[in-house]
Amino acid sequence: MFKVYVSFKDQQITLQSEENKVLLDLLRENEIDIPAPCGGKSKCGKCIVQVLSGKLNDVAAHEKDVLGKERINAGYRLSCMTKVLGDCSIIVPDFSNEATIMTDLSGVEFSGNGIVNKFTINLGKPNVHDQASDLERIQDKYGKCLFENNMRFLNQLPSLLRQSDFKVEMIFIDGMPADIPDQDSKKDYFGIAIDIGTTTVAVYLYDFVSKNPIDHVSFLNPQKPFGADVISRIDSCIQSEENLKRQSELVILHVNNAIGTLCKNNGVSTNDIYTMAFVGNTTMMHLFMGISPVNIASSPFIPVTVAMHRLKPSDLGITINPNGLIYALPCISGYVGADTVGAVYATGMHKNNKITVMCDIGTNGEIVLGNRDQLYTCSTAAGPAFEGANIKCGIGGVAGAIDKVKIDTDVVYTTIGNKKPTGICGSGIVDVIAEMLDEGIIDYTGRIVDQDELDETVPTAVADRIINFSGDNAFLVESASKTGTKEDIIITQKDVRELQNAKAAIAAGILILIKASGYTFDDIDAFYLAGGFGNYLKVSAACKIGLIPKELESKVKNAGNAAGAGALLFISSEDSVREVEDIKNKTEYIELSTNPDFSNQYIDCMFF
Amino acid sequence: MFKVYVSFKDQQITLQSEENKVLLDLLRENEIDIPAPCGGKSKCGKCIVQVLSGKLNDVAAHEKDVLGKERINAGYRLSCMTKVLGDCSIIVPDFSNEATIMTDLSGVEFSGNGIVNKFTINLGKPNVHDQASDLERIQDKYGKCLFENNMRFLNQLPSLLRQSDFKVEMIFIDGMPADIPDQDSKKDYFGIAIDIGTTTVAVYLYDFVSKNPIDHVSFLNPQKPFGADVISRIDSCIQSEENLKRQSELVILHVNNAIGTLCKNNGVSTNDIYTMAFVGNTTMMHLFMGISPVNIASSPFIPVTVAMHRLKPSDLGITINPNGLIYALPCISGYVGADTVGAVYATGMHKNNKITVMCDIGTNGEIVLGNRDQLYTCSTAAGPAFEGANIKCGIGGVAGAIDKVKIDTDVVYTTIGNKKPTGICGSGIVDVIAEMLDEGIIDYTGRIVDQDELDETVPTAVADRIINFSGDNAFLVESASKTGTKEDIIITQKDVRELQNAKAAIAAGILILIKASGYTFDDIDAFYLAGGFGNYLKVSAACKIGLIPKELESKVKNAGNAAGAGALLFISSEDSVREVEDIKNKTEYIELSTNPDFSNQYIDCMFF
Repeated sequence: MFKVYVSFKDQQITLQSEENKVLLDLLRENEIDIPAPCGGKSKCGKCIVQVLSGKLNDVAAHEKDVLGKERINAGYRLSCMTKVLGDCSIIVPDFSNEATIMTDLSGVEFSGNGIVNKFTINLGKPNVHDQASDLERIQDKYGKCLFENNMRFLNQLPSLLRQSDFKVEMIFIDGMPADIPDQDSKKDYFGIAIDIGTTTVAVYLYDFVSKNPIDHVSFLNPQKPFGADVISRIDSCIQSEENLKRQSELVILHVNNAIGTLCKNNGVSTNDIYTMAFVGNTTMMHLFMGISPVNIASSPFIPVTVAMHRLKPSDLGITINPNGLIYALPCISGYVGADTVGAVYATGMHKNNKITVMCDIGTNGEIVLGNRDQLYTCSTAAGPAFEGANIKCGIGGVAGAIDKVKIDTDVVYTTIGNKKPTGICGSGIVDVIAEMLDEGIIDYTGRIVDQDELDETVPTAVADRIINFSGDNAFLVESASKTGTKEDIIITQKDVRELQNAKAAIAAGILILIKASGYTFDDIDAFYLAGGFGNYLKVSAACKIGLIPKELESKVKNAGNAAGAGALLFISSEDSVREVEDIKNKTEYIELSTNPDFSNQYIDCMFF
Repeated sequence: MFKVYVSFKDQQITLQSEENKVLLDLLRENEIDIPAPCGGKSKCGKCIVQVLSGKLNDVAAHEKDVLGKERINAGYRLSCMTKVLGDCSIIVPDFSNEATIMTDLSGVEFSGNGIVNKFTINLGKPNVHDQASDLERIQDKYGKCLFENNMRFLNQLPSLLRQSDFKVEMIFIDGMPADIPDQDSKKDYFGIAIDIGTTTVAVYLYDFVSKNPIDHVSFLNPQKPFGADVISRIDSCIQSEENLKRQSELVILHVNNAIGTLCKNNGVSTNDIYTMAFVGNTTMMHLFMGISPVNIASSPFIPVTVAMHRLKPSDLGITINPNGLIYALPCISGYVGADTVGAVYATGMHKNNKITVMCDIGTNGEIVLGNRDQLYTCSTAAGPAFEGANIKCGIGGVAGAIDKVKIDTDVVYTTIGNKKPTGICGSGIVDVIAEMLDEGIIDYTGRIVDQDELDETVPTAVADRIINFSGDNAFLVESASKTGTKEDIIITQKDVRELQNAKAAIAAGILILIKASGYTFDDIDAFYLAGGFGNYLKVSAACKIGLIPKELESKVKNAGNAAGAGALLFISSEDSVREVEDIKNKTEYIELSTNPDFSNQYIDCMFF
């Protein structure tokens, strides 16, 4: 056994390692958060560590290609290709604080009674003419009780009722008696709403008395070491049962930590939290509930469940009041999840008499179209281009990412956090390609033209940015001397092709839904962009590249983190269970993978 | 600390004891089964141990009175009055194998589908045109599933369905999908029915394929050290929470043992047991479910619950298939329990168009009267006389108990197990008092007459049995020389008074129900005697002493262990849940404690 000294987040950690242990595996097993979007398959080049000293295997040719000479010289390695051969000392870069996490609720309003209510009720004292049992005394007045088969609670019931002479404060969840709080418990009572994203998890604390979400925390999904996207996460579950169990435990653990943080920061007891609602894509829902998502990965894409689940906190190991109730919002299909149902709920499109469209763009684009009579939905595989993956200089929405680009006399851009640029995130990629189209640097087929094909109005500074990269034309956004990585930031011909595929998938999905519904562009009243990427996207650029049909440009509205807002709205509303069931019932799912119209539309949409 | 060497059931056990520890407490804490009907209050004189050697506190005057000179000389002590002052060695008599346990099902017939069924179902394989989730695929065909919020099961569901190409054997409980057994599981599947008596517990194993109860075991209720009757058991719960917990754990432990024995003896796996139904009086039901019965003891006699409960095996810690379902049959009131509901179910009186009466006589007599339109019920406190307690020479229905008595030229009797008589059990007491009435030894007021008041036809041998005891007349059933205890077996004047109280309570209850219902004796088609005592009772004697109204003598039928039969019928019938709910809904409870009619009837019924 060897010692591996790890510097991570201001901490010094000493790990024990067997000989020949892959460094990425070692770090994962010890819960050190390291990005590996490809799932440790040496493809993504993101699992970088810096080696300070020690004995490791030699740097492979592939590692040199991926990291470049400068980084190799500074001791950088891909941890998935690095094996421990003796004691060593490494630094793991901390990405966690750099994530830009989307918790914007975009003006969603909370009012009225929530799904949890506390009332003082007078049950009347029993006497020989009124001998109803303690439980019946409650059931006779209030119907089905959540605790009616909970023997632990029923054992406490007699003293709870008699302490207060049968006049008690009672917690109701969805109209059902659920708990009698201690007499010394606080006036306020709370709920938790969670949006479990593949990348980030947002946890909101809702106060049922003030009728407001009072705080939130968010964190990177701790399943990240198992892969960046749902397919990698499912793949790891196919590899072993243990990976499923581990992914499930990790996210539950982190959610409990987040609940603990929210409680501590707001002087709330976990015992005063009576409900939790969670949304996520269908795979995230499965992993959160500890059930196998493996059949979602391949055709015919079958989940174990898409139902709404009402669970006891102990069913999931969630640390809120044990007499509380946890709601898993329903999904629609393997690739239209509870996050989409939550987003529909937040936009209110299921109650709108006008036709609206909601689109959440990520690796998959989930699209919903319709009104209070009927909703249509589909999911379209955009690939990871919008999240910065499979793009030469693409990165996520982290500090240092180029997020906005304008080409005028030369290229100007902004970065997240105003840091030195380290790459381009999704919104920046859409921006730069829209600008390149405007300048004629890219033609309608997606080809990056030669300098001499450019219109003469294009400034020389801009034209000079068309460079050669691996035998193709590429566009230099920023040169190595001014970047944080000391390498050029460029858009390659391959990057443009990736983007064409991605935008065609989304655009074709939108067109298919419009066709299926029988409506026209004119019938559509609003087009909601939901989710992190949608929030940062410049609408004109998205329409310019054909990601969103031009006809809808004036109708685009930002819906913020509509999925998270939906989960919050769910707990903040008395009638949410019926509303969400209504959404599920009126939504027709359209499978695109076997739809011949979709293939045709997709090809049409490839062009600019 | 001292050592206490205990001989018990062929075992030698060494216990550690503090100084001054009460021996009964020490034995109880170490789960040594010792009768203490009064709950250790030095009243009942049953918690006898024999001291072989060692240092203990001196014998108190009260102990001498209770045990008699001979037993004191032989080293007998009341363990509740004995304190450990040094190392000692004792024998604890074993009563457990002597119990006559009632498991007679009296010709109840089992047929038709049970509450559990196993069918092979073809769910059809999913495809891109039929993308229902695995759970929905089942729900769409069969409705609500018992496992729909059971994540442990749902995680296994995909492989269970795919192993068999979506054509699976499915267990249904009460019509709801509940489990998919392993492909190598046996053809048969089973249920358990339990009658939890205050004194004895009977556990039946039912085979759903052969449609028969195939075996049973019974054992003394392990809660006995906490008191012989429900009031003592409740008292011990009032004393401490711990006593409630302990009583609950003990009975669950013993039931699990019994299930284990049944499985072993019949080659059954606990995993093939999919349901369990249990009945008992309201207090036994509470203790089995681990919920506090304390408010049942005193007016207004309020239980925590009288509802039917559907519980997961893990809710109670019962070792059957974890996906099975346990039914607690409903109770009617604090003193009309699920055993009575079970007995009604077994007699079928709730479906009979004729009027019938069912009566279960014990410390409390539970009486039900009515037909398919309406049932009336009451519970009447007979006291423990019929169970041999509070009677000078009374004992339970154990080996050596006088159970039948006839007075002819002299007294003749039989004993249980044909052993030397050690006392009189309930049926013997009713017999002897009926015979004494016949002979004029007891007058209509209940007084034991003087010898000179007897009719001259009474044989001298019989007349000479009227003796003096503590200044009152008494009747000598057997003299010391012929008994197992070497003491006279007598019926005292006080014993007759105890019996008068007991029989008046039952008789008045029957009359009150008849009056409440508006029927007359002529309307009654049958009178079912249920339970252990009723089974052994001589009907003519019961009518002679006025326990059962004379008008009903010809209508009396033995219903055997109707409560246990009811629990078995419950699991053996497809429609039992509705039937039992029907019984509960149509039963009107009549509280006797505040009923002025009852007081009057009670006084009238005191006379013979």
